[in-house]
Amino acid sequence: MRMVDLIELKKNHGEFNEKQIQFIIDGYVKGDIPDYQVSALLMAICFTGLTTQETVLLTKAMAYSGEIMDFSQIDGVLVDKHSTGGVGDKTTLIIAPMVAACGAKIVKMSGRGLGHTGGTLDKLESIPGYCVFKKHKEIIDQVNEIGIALIGQTDDLVPADKKLYALRDVTGTVSCMPLIASSIMSKKIASGADTILLDVKYGQGAFMKTREEAIQLANLMIEIGKRCQKDTCAIISDMNQPLGKAIGNTLEVIEAIDTLRGNGPEDLEELCLEIASEMLLQAKLFTDKKKAVQALKNVIDQGEAYKKFKQVVIAQGGDVSYIENPRRFRRGSVMIKLASKKAGYIKKLDARILGIVTMKLGGGRLTKEDVIDHSVGIILNRKIGDHVQEDDILMVIYAHKKVEEEIITQLYQAIEIVEQKVEKPVYVEEILK
Amino acid sequence: MRMVDLIELKKNHGEFNEKQIQFIIDGYVKGDIPDYQVSALLMAICFTGLTTQETVLLTKAMAYSGEIMDFSQIDGVLVDKHSTGGVGDKTTLIIAPMVAACGAKIVKMSGRGLGHTGGTLDKLESIPGYCVFKKHKEIIDQVNEIGIALIGQTDDLVPADKKLYALRDVTGTVSCMPLIASSIMSKKIASGADTILLDVKYGQGAFMKTREEAIQLANLMIEIGKRCQKDTCAIISDMNQPLGKAIGNTLEVIEAIDTLRGNGPEDLEELCLEIASEMLLQAKLFTDKKKAVQALKNVIDQGEAYKKFKQVVIAQGGDVSYIENPRRFRRGSVMIKLASKKAGYIKKLDARILGIVTMKLGGGRLTKEDVIDHSVGIILNRKIGDHVQEDDILMVIYAHKKVEEEIITQLYQAIEIVEQKVEKPVYVEEILK
Repeated sequence: MRMVDLIELKKNHGEFNEKQIQFIIDGYVKGDIPDYQVSALLMAICFTGLTTQETVLLTKAMAYSGEIMDFSQIDGVLVDKHSTGGVGDKTTLIIAPMVAACGAKIVKMSGRGLGHTGGTLDKLESIPGYCVFKKHKEIIDQVNEIGIALIGQTDDLVPADKKLYALRDVTGTVSCMPLIASSIMSKKIASGADTILLDVKYGQGAFMKTREEAIQLANLMIEIGKRCQKDTCAIISDMNQPLGKAIGNTLEVIEAIDTLRGNGPEDLEELCLEIASEMLLQAKLFTDKKKAVQALKNVIDQGEAYKKFKQVVIAQGGDVSYIENPRRFRRGSVMIKLASKKAGYIKKLDARILGIVTMKLGGGRLTKEDVIDHSVGIILNRKIGDHVQEDDILMVIYAHKKVEEEIITQLYQAIEIVEQKVEKPVYVEEILK
Repeated sequence: MRMVDLIELKKNHGEFNEKQIQFIIDGYVKGDIPDYQVSALLMAICFTGLTTQETVLLTKAMAYSGEIMDFSQIDGVLVDKHSTGGVGDKTTLIIAPMVAACGAKIVKMSGRGLGHTGGTLDKLESIPGYCVFKKHKEIIDQVNEIGIALIGQTDDLVPADKKLYALRDVTGTVSCMPLIASSIMSKKIASGADTILLDVKYGQGAFMKTREEAIQLANLMIEIGKRCQKDTCAIISDMNQPLGKAIGNTLEVIEAIDTLRGNGPEDLEELCLEIASEMLLQAKLFTDKKKAVQALKNVIDQGEAYKKFKQVVIAQGGDVSYIENPRRFRRGSVMIKLASKKAGYIKKLDARILGIVTMKLGGGRLTKEDVIDHSVGIILNRKIGDHVQEDDILMVIYAHKKVEEEIITQLYQAIEIVEQKVEKPVYVEEILK
């Protein structure tokens, strides 16, 4: 088998069989097939696509390119979730303790942020002392004891995806549905959970720009999950504006703590309840959605979810005094208030621009090597549908150095205020199973 | 400027400007832009194409990536030709001496064969002692003296094309019209001639499978030539069956000598007269095509073309006794005669298969590193349209070791014989200016 023939096959709209996909993934991971052949193939796939069967085969080949996590020693149903990424998405920090407090077991492996989207790992690391890497045996013991572990992906997890994603990132081949689906699902399958809940976002701040694309991606991933014997379902949610009010690692951790204590922003709480209740249904802890939601509300009201979060922070070496007293967190020392230039209703609050600004403030990475500043970010005072008067504060920027005029201009470009009343968006659009 | 943005631009059907194309070519030649980004871009171009303007800019950027040959010290009009490659194409060995004998000046830089197509350089090197590389000053002196030089491309000529072609070869991006056109034309422009005659072939043995594709490629190259201030025209010719009767380096040199002496096969002579007469018109040595053809016939009849060939062989160190007595050439010692299995008219004589068989016999290269055997090849006894009886010899194979049964089977697959009379194909389809 020659790689150049396989590239030609795909270029000419041919379909790969299992052996051919295995040859490509094995060869690439081993280094027998060079980057330049793989990038040509990826670009051909961007134009000619992959069938569902090819995407399933690719996902499996990728998942098995490294170690598959074996969590069979964890008692009970192990649930997992994945968000396709967005701005202000701190749901993992809230949902994982919530479902664990309701009796589900969760080992959530997260990644770091890149570009305008944040990463859960960066948020966790803004808690002083928190260690995102633990040995396999330690994870099993921790989850058997407290039901939850929030950790980083190990280097052994899906090496094929690591190599492929890095290559896609620099060759203009990121935005391709079967490649996105196989990248996400290979990691979920290798992560060893029993169930997978996908939060597929669409809008300005998401990879999928339209609701239709998000649904298409979700259905593809559900199909892959099913063919890999994983209970998989998906939630389609809005990412035109940021989720919640906080953007930036430390600010988001503080908002997560607020939400776990019952004082979170409405949209964030609603999405977390939706996702968490579906996960409890998947875990077979509930058969009725309403009862699952009520149980989740109870663990918040009774402080059980908050307590679970403190337990995981302690178990992973974090300084719990920060959780108990969020004022201890260092925030950006330069505080800039952005006032509204006119009265009206907020129609647009561009998540992508706000994510990029946070990155420029030092809170995100343009390249993987960038070192980030956890303490910078933005707190939104108003969201889409809210009314503002002239000079009302729209948002507060936390920085560490003088914020350039260009950034202020960019922030104003992220906001559109109109005279007519604007409806608040529906946060959770649809649940697909 | 970032390469990944340029890849995305092309992927999204955008158009490059001059600066962007210069950035890509400069960066790639210098090694600043890695292979894997360029291969992704090339694949995107295969799907989204290049505009004529982009193709012109790419051709110029490539041509100027290395040294441009300066032949201004050669007196008279310097003509050049290029064939898009085929099987049995020894026209350069015939045409160059012919036009030189008529007073045109020609420095023909040729390449080596790859895959099923032969290369003029390999044919020249089958003449013992013939040296294909000469210093620039020596070339100028030789052409001012005898009007002709038949040499190899230097490493300095269009380094961008060398790198790009090697990459295209292994990434399934060879068959893409603007990339083919810019590759050919960049070398022609860098070769420093005043006029360019393109022999664009179509059919089984050519890169372009159909006449329509060949015309499209020819028109694109003519447009590039014009925009680069080169008098450019093209001939569209048939390459469904091999050209002439000889395939294989030594055998083709012998056939070229026969043709220069007036004893060549009809199709080969016809094509050579067409091409050479157009070149004489381009050189402004004639204004009337018929007179140009007559002049060319005269230099053959009077032995002037043959004499010119001997002059160039001597000037480049070759042993002219081989030219004067072609029996001296070593041919394959194992001779196999392929007999017809039935009577009828030859309908198909697949040039591609015959080219591949010659390569397998050792006469061509599968990879650039392969060492070739000049003495092997095939002599066709019959061509398309000819009538054969059962057991008539269709062709003779010259090899150096036992020819495997598989090769014999493959050769029979190259031939189709039918009962109905078959018309002889038109060799020269069209002349485009």
